[in-house]
Amino acid sequence: MNRAEKIFEKTAKEHRTDAVLLSGDDVRFYATGFYATDGYVIIEKDRCLLYVDDRYLEAARAALGGGSGIEVVRLEPFKKILKPYKKVAVPLERISYREYVDLSEEGKEIVDCSSALEQAMAVKDPDELAKIEKAGRITDDAYMKLLPRIKEGMSENDCAAEVEYLMRLGGASGPSFDTIVCFGEGSSVPHHETSQRRLRFGDVVLIDFGCKWGGYCSDCTRTFLYGDDGQHAIFKSLYERVLEAHNLVKEKVVEGMSGKAADAVARNFLHKYSLDQLFTHSLGHGIGVNIHEMPTLSPRGKMTLSNGMVFSDEPGVYLEGEFGIRIEDSVVMEEGRLRSLSATDKNLLIL
Amino acid sequence: MNRAEKIFEKTAKEHRTDAVLLSGDDVRFYATGFYATDGYVIIEKDRCLLYVDDRYLEAARAALGGGSGIEVVRLEPFKKILKPYKKVAVPLERISYREYVDLSEEGKEIVDCSSALEQAMAVKDPDELAKIEKAGRITDDAYMKLLPRIKEGMSENDCAAEVEYLMRLGGASGPSFDTIVCFGEGSSVPHHETSQRRLRFGDVVLIDFGCKWGGYCSDCTRTFLYGDDGQHAIFKSLYERVLEAHNLVKEKVVEGMSGKAADAVARNFLHKYSLDQLFTHSLGHGIGVNIHEMPTLSPRGKMTLSNGMVFSDEPGVYLEGEFGIRIEDSVVMEEGRLRSLSATDKNLLIL
Repeated sequence: MNRAEKIFEKTAKEHRTDAVLLSGDDVRFYATGFYATDGYVIIEKDRCLLYVDDRYLEAARAALGGGSGIEVVRLEPFKKILKPYKKVAVPLERISYREYVDLSEEGKEIVDCSSALEQAMAVKDPDELAKIEKAGRITDDAYMKLLPRIKEGMSENDCAAEVEYLMRLGGASGPSFDTIVCFGEGSSVPHHETSQRRLRFGDVVLIDFGCKWGGYCSDCTRTFLYGDDGQHAIFKSLYERVLEAHNLVKEKVVEGMSGKAADAVARNFLHKYSLDQLFTHSLGHGIGVNIHEMPTLSPRGKMTLSNGMVFSDEPGVYLEGEFGIRIEDSVVMEEGRLRSLSATDKNLLIL
Repeated sequence: MNRAEKIFEKTAKEHRTDAVLLSGDDVRFYATGFYATDGYVIIEKDRCLLYVDDRYLEAARAALGGGSGIEVVRLEPFKKILKPYKKVAVPLERISYREYVDLSEEGKEIVDCSSALEQAMAVKDPDELAKIEKAGRITDDAYMKLLPRIKEGMSENDCAAEVEYLMRLGGASGPSFDTIVCFGEGSSVPHHETSQRRLRFGDVVLIDFGCKWGGYCSDCTRTFLYGDDGQHAIFKSLYERVLEAHNLVKEKVVEGMSGKAADAVARNFLHKYSLDQLFTHSLGHGIGVNIHEMPTLSPRGKMTLSNGMVFSDEPGVYLEGEFGIRIEDSVVMEEGRLRSLSATDKNLLIL
């Protein structure tokens, strides 16, 4: 069953519908494997149509010609595309208000397939997992090649440039999000903006990075010391706690748990050391075509974790103005347990 | 007048409103200069509030503390944020259906400020223009450094990796879109996907690339020959036509023309040589926080071009399966005329 069929099937469990209509770059790509910045996907019970404009027609036909089961059609006015259908399922969470108005004006009965689409996207098929794993290997290789290039006096920007270049040379199409490099106190801001701050001996280094390969994302964070100036007793102690939390998640999170329960594994552990107040973000997020998707592993994470899901395990603690520590692997749920997609070492590294 | 005030003023010209509500990463950044992946901006007549969650609070307060006129507030439930207002202006073109429903449920009177926002964003202030120009200089420098690195046998991906790395080292925060590198026949697809195709003597090379600096985009395309194998008479002739079209746009497009009229300058010129059928895309698009924004220079471009607007001038012709030619500079409208933001040569280069 291809991904378009999976979306239709999951939608049909909730609603009778003639067709599923998808817009948005990410979901068009998810359903068809072809990336375009404009167009629509229509999924009927037994076929899938990709509507793209002239810029993409030639490329889409070349890419999807060989038995993909997807018919490539020249983009037509919305009204014409929708004409054959009476009842259309649309992911209302993901369409713009304008699209909704256009749909409504056509007088179609509209039903919401947001949850079906999210469920479909959260569970990866073997082809998707292979792409995420490849992206993960490129990320690991880039990290190992980056370490010997890290030198005193280099800026956070230069360090980000290096790791992105290494991922690109490894075959990545680009970073999967804006690379975060923090030297020293900047690490205490979970979403620190990579800057011209230069590396000094004794700095905490936090790198949160990932790439895209075949349209799928990787995500990894490592925290380490650039030299030990003897002032790092608290850092070292907290590092061990965060690493224990990270590893505990890998050990204890199993199929059938909710995202909330998974988050609580790390949060409750850190609570024992009164560190949960410093764990100011969620434990993790789904990873696929998008760097943030379902499931959400947080105190509000409702989705049940199941085999085939890929998400991050990234506990962190942040001491404002001092330093931050985050340790992140991407993991996949397989046979009820988590398997890591990041192979690089997480024991405290002192460069 | 800062950008938040400009949005409010333009909105107020169309509708009386208590407040403008903005969501969406790009428009939050546009209005406040602070980038976060979640939150809301509320603009009242005399103040602007940026609501962000705990991940961003510290950084936002640090960034916007010094007289920006923007108050940073901890993110609260939608209901609470909207409580003080009766009539709220929202860019309906840019909000999700879900946000619309949430707004409606609060019983607020809703008016559309899509057009006011687009108008505001299309006309750059000096600070924005300086950032776009800086991004353009980084792009130019990277191109000049790239040329001597282009070698027979290198892949399109490697070439893209090089130019992105060079832009990054030049200070860019990343590419402003997926870099397009085409060697040979791939150039005939306007949105060719950069691949492992390797460079051969006599190939047409088309590179469409740009970067982000300070949150603003650059965009540039160059087409040249990697060696002349004596088979390029048609290519050379068409190259001159495209370059003439490109230059004619810079000469003839003036303040007060519509995007449609600007597009017609290039399209009518190419028509004289029966090349307009091969010009399969728009002449240009606005450039700013987003790589594609208003104005649109196309047969459907309604917006009137005015001083302060920044957009691309990118005519192209594509001979299916053979080659494509696109020549693109970013330009700004100043004192009624266009000024180029790309300084690198556009005469036919044979490497």
